[in-house]
Amino acid sequence: MSKKVSIIGNGNWGTTIGRLIAINTMESSIFSNEVRMWGCHEEFEGRVLNEIINSDNINPKYLPGIHLPENLKAESDLYNLADSDILVFALPHQYIDVIAPLKGLVKSSCIGVSLTKGFIGTEDGYIDLVSRVIHKMLDISVSVVMGANIANQVARDMISEATLGCIDDEAADVIYKLFNSYTYRVTRIKDVYGVEISGALKNVVAMAYGFAEGLGYCSNTKVAIFRSGLAEMRKFFKFFYPMATIESLFQSSGIGDLLVSCMEGRNYSCAKIMAEKRLKLNEAEGTMCYTKLQGPGTAFVVFNYLKKQNRVDDFPLMSTVYRICYEGNAYDAILECISSESIEK
Amino acid sequence: MSKKVSIIGNGNWGTTIGRLIAINTMESSIFSNEVRMWGCHEEFEGRVLNEIINSDNINPKYLPGIHLPENLKAESDLYNLADSDILVFALPHQYIDVIAPLKGLVKSSCIGVSLTKGFIGTEDGYIDLVSRVIHKMLDISVSVVMGANIANQVARDMISEATLGCIDDEAADVIYKLFNSYTYRVTRIKDVYGVEISGALKNVVAMAYGFAEGLGYCSNTKVAIFRSGLAEMRKFFKFFYPMATIESLFQSSGIGDLLVSCMEGRNYSCAKIMAEKRLKLNEAEGTMCYTKLQGPGTAFVVFNYLKKQNRVDDFPLMSTVYRICYEGNAYDAILECISSESIEK
Repeated sequence: MSKKVSIIGNGNWGTTIGRLIAINTMESSIFSNEVRMWGCHEEFEGRVLNEIINSDNINPKYLPGIHLPENLKAESDLYNLADSDILVFALPHQYIDVIAPLKGLVKSSCIGVSLTKGFIGTEDGYIDLVSRVIHKMLDISVSVVMGANIANQVARDMISEATLGCIDDEAADVIYKLFNSYTYRVTRIKDVYGVEISGALKNVVAMAYGFAEGLGYCSNTKVAIFRSGLAEMRKFFKFFYPMATIESLFQSSGIGDLLVSCMEGRNYSCAKIMAEKRLKLNEAEGTMCYTKLQGPGTAFVVFNYLKKQNRVDDFPLMSTVYRICYEGNAYDAILECISSESIEK
Repeated sequence: MSKKVSIIGNGNWGTTIGRLIAINTMESSIFSNEVRMWGCHEEFEGRVLNEIINSDNINPKYLPGIHLPENLKAESDLYNLADSDILVFALPHQYIDVIAPLKGLVKSSCIGVSLTKGFIGTEDGYIDLVSRVIHKMLDISVSVVMGANIANQVARDMISEATLGCIDDEAADVIYKLFNSYTYRVTRIKDVYGVEISGALKNVVAMAYGFAEGLGYCSNTKVAIFRSGLAEMRKFFKFFYPMATIESLFQSSGIGDLLVSCMEGRNYSCAKIMAEKRLKLNEAEGTMCYTKLQGPGTAFVVFNYLKKQNRVDDFPLMSTVYRICYEGNAYDAILECISSESIEK
């Protein structure tokens, strides 16, 4: 029985991964050729987006200019995905609740793969991970695939790496076959949390790096901020998720994703313009259409969590990004996050 | 008794650090104010360089445009440094033998600090570390200070970080006071070897990154090469220097120095031009005055060592940089170094 694969989310990243997966399923007998990609009803230039995807094999709204394989089928009815053997989640984290209708309908053997970066803040100031939220909602095991992946480069088959975090070896074999290719090189590790936490925190560090760039700092200083951010990511593991390993920081989902995000990620770019033009966060988001920016929201959730845990002073960079975004602190406060002896003491 | 401090080497980095240290000794009673900086006889525009430094407080040959403190004194006679309590070594590693005349003359209590990056290849294919070579030659303990430091930025008091690798706590206190300042932020760790090995290997990785840049690769690919290089640095620790710690890779001397070297280091820049113009190493070095480039020499020493240890296949990136530089391999061979599953298996 070949496995049915579906993707939830047809945005820039969902469509990119849909294309990649649909090419891979054509080449392996363990998967059904057809890959379904769910997206809510949207229109583009007067036509229904899902219909454009199915008739023209292109997603002009979110991945213009890229031809999609014919076996990638747009799907508008979420219920039709209930028979999937593999569900790939490619939604922005704030929309993860759209999967709720599938509750109780998905096979217990279904393999979940989350590509969603970001933390879910709970009302009482705690942090929930997207993989855990999906697990709790659908009662399936959830692995993660994340890495240093600018979507448009992956969509153009430029060589990229990614990290698969998966506890179960059999599931890892299946997911690896589904994602890995010559141009998309996947490394397997068992540390799901480490991969996922890095994927959220890196956006906060990328904002700090963007502030430094916008303020015109030299490379020594920018690199020091980068390094301090990485050190805080590591410290975050140690304090709050001791089961997450240093191993994952060395992977594409760790140092790789952090670096590419500081080179040309959206959070970096927005932060750079904020600091250059001395704009407030809402001015920058409002005037520059940076909707759904992950960094500030993550900084907000992280700061509340650190406050609750009485650990704000241990994370000067994460806290300062929050304060610049939400409390009007000056941009150059970011300089004070380069603390000598920051790890040893 | 205030401690006498001397620097051996008056090049770009030696003079930069001489300036920094001479400012610090003015502010601390544990050091003699005067800092001596040895350089061999050289001329600049018809005048003796050491005389220019002493009369004009400037080193126009190696650090033009930077005013030097008056308590930084150029010294041409190496023997005059024999009474030093602290000796700072800032020579390119291939010139380290110039200190030989001091053999048997230096106080046994003298604290050595090496700033010299690079491996010393032995005739039988082994690697010697500069700190150990100095130790064997002068019979003094040698610590290291290295970091993400573009010299001209440090010389202009732009905020930078560095790592002090020192086993002895008392010596570490002294060296820390000598180097640390608001703009030069030093972190102490005990792992001398880790700091030193990173400082050598990063130049090989920076060349790989430069090749990728010169070939016009996208950021996902460049970051994958960066990450693979870092992973090989870590693997090098594990196989050959198990006493070197992962800790040091998280320091400015590890990930920090690697990153800044891939952003604007000399090895990166030369490798980029080599790949862009399809030049051979000697053409690039010859036509572009990239004398004393550390990366190719380090790749050579490392490759011979790996061959001797039968470990070439475990270090595809390091080996490929060697083969591109010395065996005429194509530049895009660097792509094959991004091995999926590179760490796990």
